[in-house]
Amino acid sequence: MSAQDKQTYLDNLGKQGREASYSLANLTAKDKQQLLTAIAASLQAHKKEILAANEMDVAAAREAGLNDAMVDRLLLDEARLQGVIADIDNVIALADPVGSEIDSRVLDNGMRLARRRVPLGVIGVIYEARPNVTVDIAVLALKTGNAVILRGGKETVNSNRALASAIRRAVVEQGLPQDAVQLIDNPDRELVSGLLKLDQYVDMIVPRGGQKLQRLCAEQATIPVILGGIGICHMFIDEQADLSRINPVIINAKVQRPTVCNALDTLLVHEKVAAEVIPAALTELAAQGVRFYGCDKTRELAAGLNVEMHTADNESFSTEWLSLTLGVRVVADLDQAVTHIRRHSSGHSEAILTDNIHTAARFMEQVDSSAVYVNASTRFTDGGQFGLGAEVAVSTQKLHARGPMGLEALTTFKWLAWGDYTARS
Amino acid sequence: MSAQDKQTYLDNLGKQGREASYSLANLTAKDKQQLLTAIAASLQAHKKEILAANEMDVAAAREAGLNDAMVDRLLLDEARLQGVIADIDNVIALADPVGSEIDSRVLDNGMRLARRRVPLGVIGVIYEARPNVTVDIAVLALKTGNAVILRGGKETVNSNRALASAIRRAVVEQGLPQDAVQLIDNPDRELVSGLLKLDQYVDMIVPRGGQKLQRLCAEQATIPVILGGIGICHMFIDEQADLSRINPVIINAKVQRPTVCNALDTLLVHEKVAAEVIPAALTELAAQGVRFYGCDKTRELAAGLNVEMHTADNESFSTEWLSLTLGVRVVADLDQAVTHIRRHSSGHSEAILTDNIHTAARFMEQVDSSAVYVNASTRFTDGGQFGLGAEVAVSTQKLHARGPMGLEALTTFKWLAWGDYTARS
Repeated sequence: MSAQDKQTYLDNLGKQGREASYSLANLTAKDKQQLLTAIAASLQAHKKEILAANEMDVAAAREAGLNDAMVDRLLLDEARLQGVIADIDNVIALADPVGSEIDSRVLDNGMRLARRRVPLGVIGVIYEARPNVTVDIAVLALKTGNAVILRGGKETVNSNRALASAIRRAVVEQGLPQDAVQLIDNPDRELVSGLLKLDQYVDMIVPRGGQKLQRLCAEQATIPVILGGIGICHMFIDEQADLSRINPVIINAKVQRPTVCNALDTLLVHEKVAAEVIPAALTELAAQGVRFYGCDKTRELAAGLNVEMHTADNESFSTEWLSLTLGVRVVADLDQAVTHIRRHSSGHSEAILTDNIHTAARFMEQVDSSAVYVNASTRFTDGGQFGLGAEVAVSTQKLHARGPMGLEALTTFKWLAWGDYTARS
Repeated sequence: MSAQDKQTYLDNLGKQGREASYSLANLTAKDKQQLLTAIAASLQAHKKEILAANEMDVAAAREAGLNDAMVDRLLLDEARLQGVIADIDNVIALADPVGSEIDSRVLDNGMRLARRRVPLGVIGVIYEARPNVTVDIAVLALKTGNAVILRGGKETVNSNRALASAIRRAVVEQGLPQDAVQLIDNPDRELVSGLLKLDQYVDMIVPRGGQKLQRLCAEQATIPVILGGIGICHMFIDEQADLSRINPVIINAKVQRPTVCNALDTLLVHEKVAAEVIPAALTELAAQGVRFYGCDKTRELAAGLNVEMHTADNESFSTEWLSLTLGVRVVADLDQAVTHIRRHSSGHSEAILTDNIHTAARFMEQVDSSAVYVNASTRFTDGGQFGLGAEVAVSTQKLHARGPMGLEALTTFKWLAWGDYTARS
């Protein structure tokens, strides 16, 4: 496509999405439940095409030499597709935030004023080669009355086409415009840059991907972006932690699912208990395959252990590991732990283990991350765990949404005022 | 300054602001009231320096040939300064949103979870040559526990220096870091571009200025920006409006203060009442000095009137007038009015005048602007009028804040969780 053709293509996507959003905005909760039910049925009805399309993607990925983990990520077999369809039922059951009124009041001049929750309008989502996200995001957007423009990883383009096609058929069946859900299925990266500048039509961009994608969006977008999903997470073992209970929590935070954003990246240990904590914790972690980047004191204390130990530096302490790697640092006190966190954290999730209520309170006050835990694993930062019922993304920025984003984060509000031919005096 | 020096200067501003924000974040409501009281006293104590500095700015503005309206905007005389100081008392009296907890609940695993409202951190505000904004914004930011970086119009640099200096003295007197309030007093425009990219330290940018500044921020910022303050506002006169009551509302919306963002820009008139409405309304408006850009039908209906009439086109209908100019269009029905608004509105404020409850409800549902009025003037879109007690800006975007922004828009929340050495299963 020429630059001109790309812009025309993007403008049309934007206009069509905006137009579709008007039809979606005033659907009732029941309308939207029916729409989601129809989507689940359509995915079921078209599962042969979907699975066949995914087989093409998997074959192409193998041919391109992608490793097993990456191929597994993009695989959609019968069981996984049934899981994706079953998840739609969970979304159908969630309460619809749209239409609720907040802050109703009568002003001194008699005017009635309220804020009504409404859909955002058009949402753009950019994500990696995970075909389940195509369905997840489309369903969450429609549940809240939004149109959505999807741009998935190029390795799953056939799967995404088949999924989007099945979803669009269901949308049309329900008498709604098919452009409620649009897919950018051209792998040209300039279309991503162009999408980020469609501020005339698109209300919010959610990038679901790594650091590079997040930076690209922050730098290029003229549309508000929800940054997130990058977690450099800390756990501080205070001198007054119950040392007999800490290891299962540390191990849970690091080992249970090391590839996700709420997994532990750095363990901070109060120097008064370091000699006891570090050998025991590192031995248990190493038994689960964890390797370490330790500060000088950590390396001293671990000298006799059979563990893989590297030298920590500022760079390693600012790394989101997403693997069985853990930074370890001995700190003088709570203040030094907080200073370390302020310097290195991505603002996602931090925890303290302590039995001292004052230390716990100070940690909660002084650490400003989306989720702050006392005596719990960082692994809980998740829409499902927090009872939101769904998770659009995990925001690590502070505007609009912070931490796990549920349905409400896909809405805004408008102020509605009823007067009686009222003029301002 | 060299490019390198500018970056160092900006990085220092950012670091100092971030560091100061830690001291502010956990102040009690009473601490912050005392701080604001001290600021009012300090402005009073240093009023001679402030007024003298403003005289320099006014003299320079006259010498540079600025027109009277512009000189008046940057003037700060004794009476106006007393007004600015008195406004601080209003802010002191407002409820402090910081520290309140929302959504407290106990999860199935026994973990207690709540969201606590906290300051955003560091806020950057870019504004025009209005010295009162320097005080307003500093006070609102501090009231909510935020550090602020101010960049005012170059025509008021002396006034802003004197004001910021008085404020910083009060901050220090209260035992707080002076960099809670920082002023960029170098007129170099590259510093604005640099400020917009300080995402490592600054949490939100609020541009208070015209279309050009808003676009600059949308395009260059890597920090979340609250766009706003641009109002292309519409009023639709429905066929079932009470025609005996409409003129005072139309005139209020257009004439009361034509230079502000919530003033009326375009009047849409149902064709069934156009022959009655247009001659009467335009005659009254013209008597107040209003000139018009009319559609074909409007120009026909106004042919015999003694009014200044131009030909409306797409461009004029997409103009925020900020003056005694009004676009006028006859529309076939509500749908055409809504379509016109969707196409030309900036999403600020729209109104319908009608006695038909169904038409009113449809207008409210279908028009998606920050404020939608039935039988009232658009002039009410204002933090004070809406009872927010303060107004940081009027947001015309949909994320985080929409419409008049009160104190709450200067806060975010964090999720706090209390476990009992709880691991995720």
